[in-house]
Amino acid sequence: MSPIVTFTSDFGTTDWFVGVVHGVVHDGCADARVVDLTHEVPPGDIDAGAFVLEAAAPDFPPGTVHLAVVDPGVGTSRLALAVAARGQWFVGPDNGLLEWALCAPGARVHARSDAKWLRQPVSRTFHARDVFAPVAAHLACGVPLDRFGPAVAAPVRRPRSEPHLADDGSLTGCIVYLDRFGNALTDLTTEWLDRAFHGIDGHDLIVDVLDRSIDGIRGSYGEAKIGALVALLGSSGRLEIAEVGGNSSHRFGIGVRDQVRIRRR
Amino acid sequence: MSPIVTFTSDFGTTDWFVGVVHGVVHDGCADARVVDLTHEVPPGDIDAGAFVLEAAAPDFPPGTVHLAVVDPGVGTSRLALAVAARGQWFVGPDNGLLEWALCAPGARVHARSDAKWLRQPVSRTFHARDVFAPVAAHLACGVPLDRFGPAVAAPVRRPRSEPHLADDGSLTGCIVYLDRFGNALTDLTTEWLDRAFHGIDGHDLIVDVLDRSIDGIRGSYGEAKIGALVALLGSSGRLEIAEVGGNSSHRFGIGVRDQVRIRRR
Amino acid sequence: MSPIVTFTSDFGTTDWFVGVVHGVVHDGCADARVVDLTHEVPPGDIDAGAFVLEAAAPDFPPGTVHLAVVDPGVGTSRLALAVAARGQWFVGPDNGLLEWALCAPGARVHARSDAKWLRQPVSRTFHARDVFAPVAAHLACGVPLDRFGPAVAAPVRRPRSEPHLADDGSLTGCIVYLDRFGNALTDLTTEWLDRAFHGIDGHDLIVDVLDRSIDGIRGSYGEAKIGALVALLGSSGRLEIAEVGGNSSHRFGIGVRDQVRIRRR
Repeated sequence: MSPIVTFTSDFGTTDWFVGVVHGVVHDGCADARVVDLTHEVPPGDIDAGAFVLEAAAPDFPPGTVHLAVVDPGVGTSRLALAVAARGQWFVGPDNGLLEWALCAPGARVHARSDAKWLRQPVSRTFHARDVFAPVAAHLACGVPLDRFGPAVAAPVRRPRSEPHLADDGSLTGCIVYLDRFGNALTDLTTEWLDRAFHGIDGHDLIVDVLDRSIDGIRGSYGEAKIGALVALLGSSGRLEIAEVGGNSSHRFGIGVRDQVRIRRR
Repeated sequence: MSPIVTFTSDFGTTDWFVGVVHGVVHDGCADARVVDLTHEVPPGDIDAGAFVLEAAAPDFPPGTVHLAVVDPGVGTSRLALAVAARGQWFVGPDNGLLEWALCAPGARVHARSDAKWLRQPVSRTFHARDVFAPVAAHLACGVPLDRFGPAVAAPVRRPRSEPHLADDGSLTGCIVYLDRFGNALTDLTTEWLDRAFHGIDGHDLIVDVLDRSIDGIRGSYGEAKIGALVALLGSSGRLEIAEVGGNSSHRFGIGVRDQVRIRRR
Repeated sequence: MSPIVTFTSDFGTTDWFVGVVHGVVHDGCADARVVDLTHEVPPGDIDAGAFVLEAAAPDFPPGTVHLAVVDPGVGTSRLALAVAARGQWFVGPDNGLLEWALCAPGARVHARSDAKWLRQPVSRTFHARDVFAPVAAHLACGVPLDRFGPAVAAPVRRPRSEPHLADDGSLTGCIVYLDRFGNALTDLTTEWLDRAFHGIDGHDLIVDVLDRSIDGIRGSYGEAKIGALVALLGSSGRLEIAEVGGNSSHRFGIGVRDQVRIRRR
């Protein structure tokens, strides 16, 4: 009825680019409700944009269209993709940004090839407006995926980091994202924790990060003292390292790709 | 028909949290129009968030739902409130953030207790998504307040600063907010000014702030010279201290809680 | 049906001002879809705001209402304008902000004079809320332009910079805007380039900016090496100077009003 179209980019909000894309989506699908995820992805940082989709998309209802544009190769021959995966739709450049959709079982991947879905004239530098937004709008309005162009057998992949379960029973992953509060999100999802430590109480685990060892995995920020470094299960279903009432990244120097290890006490 | 749901938080816009909350509101109430007030409340600053609601809510029509989340106690046992006050609805944590609703005569305050209004599974760290947004969406769609849970007799209060009318006829208040232009908003509302100086022309008053005395209360910025420090009645019905064409906070060092005194010439 | 109302201002998003204006538009025209262009126009910078409208408005469909407020003279006697131009509507202060509408052939310019379109009480400092947003909402809902007030014969103009075509065949313009990526947008539009260099391949032109000479005008960022300074036709139909994968403003010190000259090799 009134489909949700999310929009993620590295455009920032000091210029008019985001607003123009909203206009194209509304123009193509009058009923769409456009929801900004963020436009503060660091310019050109495909991994950060891919993580935003992975973290946020599961919170949206089936049928949501996710438009994502972090596109340093704009104007080259890279394909424009439309993907059906996990009950939702994903539209963006063929550079790995849509990895979370591409790695889903049964994902269907098509390239936009038919010129009738383009906004004319097509610029060489603003495909969010001229290529991706029209496709997202028409998907939201019910145009079937295979109408946009042919299936793509080998889209560009951008493998996500993978935790490692060692022989001694410890689980090692890494920091994948720092949020605005300075919380450090890891690739250690509840699925991995269940696999490694099924039936073990979080209080009986120790989390090593940099030269620190954190005692136990907690349920919430509110349980510990201000200034403490804690490990807890965050809202997107993965282990987070946080400073209670503070910024763990600023205070302890934790950064993306730092190793995080969980072991029994 | 198409209820307005405003959203205020300390989430910032570099992550996806705000977008996810929009999605939950749209999913729960397809007709809602979601309006962001601001998400740049300093992290955990309940007073600043409470002031945003006090300043902005009167500008919205009756029936508006105000969703506000500045929630350092997320995951503890603090209640989730839904309040009917001043012809509008307010949803947020029981930590004083909703003070402007709570201090209204006849405010009705309920706690969310029925699990059927939650988004499942409920995280310990993102109640904006899992608890508050669903309640706001259902209020917007017409669910009666008492369906969410029992009345709360003693919600957490966060008393606002109160001006003082002295025997010599002077009125003393303080700075409560610095806006993006560096204008310093005070707690000296038109009601207080009327009470203290009824019938007296603004030009016959003097405003003391820090070690400066400002001559008269003006009608607008445009009347004075660039660089002048002026006192005027601002758009939210309260005295503001401003540097014409500049930033009074940066230039004169005016800050929140600084005392402001008005006296007859 | 569901008209688009764009909104451009220098309000920033740390306060609640933008949200309140959205609320007034929704309250006045329930079907409107409000799209923010940007609220990061530098405070009081009318030229920058005017350029945002010039760059973005052509990307919106006919019938769009553009609400723009950069208004250092708020509270003085400057008029509030509603303009019909280029198949769209423009609402804002009479200070040159709407220059792109005013310079269009056949533009119809009216001043808001009838008090019935105001939001009461009218503040002296927040006309976006009390004057401009109600006019934009009612235009979006179909109120005819002449209902708001009388025609204005001589609105304040803010002439845009104009390129110069020299006797030696070279074309000289200047930088008019730096975007978030550090790309420097010029006033050298495709129309001017066609007039000066019709039929000449972009590779046979040289672009001089500061003490540098750029070889050729390219089609996209993707064609050159990281770190190279390139000239290309940007998405808003004008020559841009960009550093591939970088920020030309930070790296080469290019700024607004710097001269840009194009000549044959």
